[in-house]
Amino acid sequence: MREASANSLEINRLATSDGDFDTRLEALLAWEGVSDAEVQQRVSGILAAVQQRGDAALVEYSNRLDRLSVAGMAELTLDAERLRQAHDNLPAEQREALAHAAERIRHYHEQQKPTSWQYTEADGTVLGQQVTPLDRAGIYVPGGKAAYPSSVLMNAIPAHVAGVAEIVMVVPTPDGVLNDLVLAAAYLAGVDHVFTIGGAQAVAALAYGTETVPRVDKIVGPGNIYVATAKRAVFGRVGIDMIAGPSEILVVSDGQTDADWLAMDLFSQAEHDEDAQAILISWDAEHLEAVAEAMARQLPTLERENIVRASLASRGALIHCRDQDEALALINRVAPEHLELSVAEPQAWLPQVRHAGAIFMGRHTAEALGDYCAGPNHVLPTSGTARFSSPLGVYDFQKRSSLIQCSPQGASRLGTTASVLARGESLTAHARSAEYRIRD
Amino acid sequence: MREASANSLEINRLATSDGDFDTRLEALLAWEGVSDAEVQQRVSGILAAVQQRGDAALVEYSNRLDRLSVAGMAELTLDAERLRQAHDNLPAEQREALAHAAERIRHYHEQQKPTSWQYTEADGTVLGQQVTPLDRAGIYVPGGKAAYPSSVLMNAIPAHVAGVAEIVMVVPTPDGVLNDLVLAAAYLAGVDHVFTIGGAQAVAALAYGTETVPRVDKIVGPGNIYVATAKRAVFGRVGIDMIAGPSEILVVSDGQTDADWLAMDLFSQAEHDEDAQAILISWDAEHLEAVAEAMARQLPTLERENIVRASLASRGALIHCRDQDEALALINRVAPEHLELSVAEPQAWLPQVRHAGAIFMGRHTAEALGDYCAGPNHVLPTSGTARFSSPLGVYDFQKRSSLIQCSPQGASRLGTTASVLARGESLTAHARSAEYRIRD
Repeated sequence: MREASANSLEINRLATSDGDFDTRLEALLAWEGVSDAEVQQRVSGILAAVQQRGDAALVEYSNRLDRLSVAGMAELTLDAERLRQAHDNLPAEQREALAHAAERIRHYHEQQKPTSWQYTEADGTVLGQQVTPLDRAGIYVPGGKAAYPSSVLMNAIPAHVAGVAEIVMVVPTPDGVLNDLVLAAAYLAGVDHVFTIGGAQAVAALAYGTETVPRVDKIVGPGNIYVATAKRAVFGRVGIDMIAGPSEILVVSDGQTDADWLAMDLFSQAEHDEDAQAILISWDAEHLEAVAEAMARQLPTLERENIVRASLASRGALIHCRDQDEALALINRVAPEHLELSVAEPQAWLPQVRHAGAIFMGRHTAEALGDYCAGPNHVLPTSGTARFSSPLGVYDFQKRSSLIQCSPQGASRLGTTASVLARGESLTAHARSAEYRIRD
Repeated sequence: MREASANSLEINRLATSDGDFDTRLEALLAWEGVSDAEVQQRVSGILAAVQQRGDAALVEYSNRLDRLSVAGMAELTLDAERLRQAHDNLPAEQREALAHAAERIRHYHEQQKPTSWQYTEADGTVLGQQVTPLDRAGIYVPGGKAAYPSSVLMNAIPAHVAGVAEIVMVVPTPDGVLNDLVLAAAYLAGVDHVFTIGGAQAVAALAYGTETVPRVDKIVGPGNIYVATAKRAVFGRVGIDMIAGPSEILVVSDGQTDADWLAMDLFSQAEHDEDAQAILISWDAEHLEAVAEAMARQLPTLERENIVRASLASRGALIHCRDQDEALALINRVAPEHLELSVAEPQAWLPQVRHAGAIFMGRHTAEALGDYCAGPNHVLPTSGTARFSSPLGVYDFQKRSSLIQCSPQGASRLGTTASVLARGESLTAHARSAEYRIRD
């Protein structure tokens, strides 16, 4: 069946000049990660069980859901020595590539560290903000087919750079399968403990703590619908990162980038899974055809051809627009996770790009470089959430405390204003507390 | 009944030397804002109705739940002129106090603005991060008894300083009651539109947009359990701030601050509502008694005496500890929303304070000054969430985009590393996309 379409390409074709463009674009972008009532109920049950019975519940769920037969948490715990071994046993090429990536990611994130600040006013009053790291962070790493060592680096290194005292990683091992590249990445990234647990039960263990698993302050990292539902439920008790949708890329080409390069850039997004989204925009119609031709030609050579075809057919698109202004409007409307500006002068576009998770500029900057080793984080806001959220960063593992130290003179002056406003809100104890500091 | 206790004080007394101290402290701090199944279901119904029927549903719910009888959204919309009028009609004293507060809050938040940055590596590769404001922010302001103009300033000014293009405020008017101080604050803070709607229906309108209410990118501001449940439900579609629990203060005194001052500082927290929490810690037992005596003496003079008594009896505490080190350990365990360091050298304590929303330093810095006009935000993490979250700030109304521009040489070098790692993850289209950029 697939052979019949070997040299064909099924992908959505849109043009901004089409009468139904808005409707079709809207439909193409629509995504809602729904956790139905059944998922919600199962997750509630798991959260309650782990909160009440701790390790015992963790062991039961892990045995049942990951098809294990362990007797206790000791068998679900990996120590630092095990991580080091995994690292030391890697082939040299992989070990060096991981080290290169880790070093670049660390260097980039060092630039992100917010700093504490204070200033003193004329009357001696001091105001400021103190930045401190979290005590403990939990990193969720998916197991099985989507166990990505690069994700371990991207989630754990910012926490380490932030100064988090203890980094706890959880990774399920369905059928007992353990990925040594993942453990090696944990070693390089500065992870302190690893527990081979997953699903909603792992989220519960991190949020509530058990006899063995320490309670963390924030849980980050991607997971399936059970993990996402559990994270949403424990939000407030602990911090969480964004709940991720499928990965997406928006490529804008001025027509001068090699069509084969662009085809492969789009494939690299589509190969993630059937729900991934790869979109190319250009005002050069001939160029769009050239890329389509390159895609059709290269598709049969892909290892993950079936996934790519499914993704392109349902969610992929080639969009013809009128000009650069329309391309910019589309960028800001889509607010893409990944934006590739495959144009001659990408820096000139920046001031007008309002919403994008990461911006890959110029013909040489394949998104895949950013996924692994350019330095910036590959955990990015998906499904249009770049409208209001940011790449995972050092700032996600730190928090701020406001600082206020009033001089006697400052307190006296501020007391008058506070008193008027507090009385306007009928909060008279507030007013009187301020008034005590007013000097005669 | 209240008269019988006129000169008495009911408050929890704890000492770190007690055998059951940990258990009692834990019980005292415990707080869970539960939205039961019934609330969840009602909120789901409201969200779905507003998403599907827009303005019509908004008008229906507002009429029913706020006991109004309006015919359409025009009657639930206030224009800029109405806000200006509210401001201009205020008594001069209130107008000046609001202006003084707004100016100080604006100045402090100006210091918080993160800036975009880029750096260039030896091979010409450019990395960085671009900071941009949200397009549109929604501010939820509670109506009725808890309609606080100071909250309008604290929520809207950071958005305005961040450069948010459009600030939309919603405030319910139960029984048609409108608070002119709230509108005046909106005018000063730079709010663009006000809709007099509230509850889950207002959250839905901001998250989905209706014919009249523009869809926003993030919703901030406190609300009741329906508002909190609705915010949690729309999280992901829009950004939200933390879901707030009851307000709390932890005061640490070295025994040298006037007992009457401290009593009023504790009352100013307790007067918020029965669930508010006021705790005083000292290693000076006599001082604790002096504050207790001052509280008992002053209690009958309070306008909100009944609320304060209820709050102190159920959630208030005087805690005797051994020394400064124990006080610091308690601070970090509680992670208080407000921390008052009523001690001689508060700056010396800072490096050891890991978790607190806002730190009020010295005997003159009443928390009430920070609530209104010191400058820092009064929207702070409650219920121990200062372990992982920050005061509301300019950073909540901005987001970041990663910037990556590889030089041909940089892309070639990074391509080798990316290729090895991508093949290790079996993502071969990623590998090939990177390999295209490797030079021979």
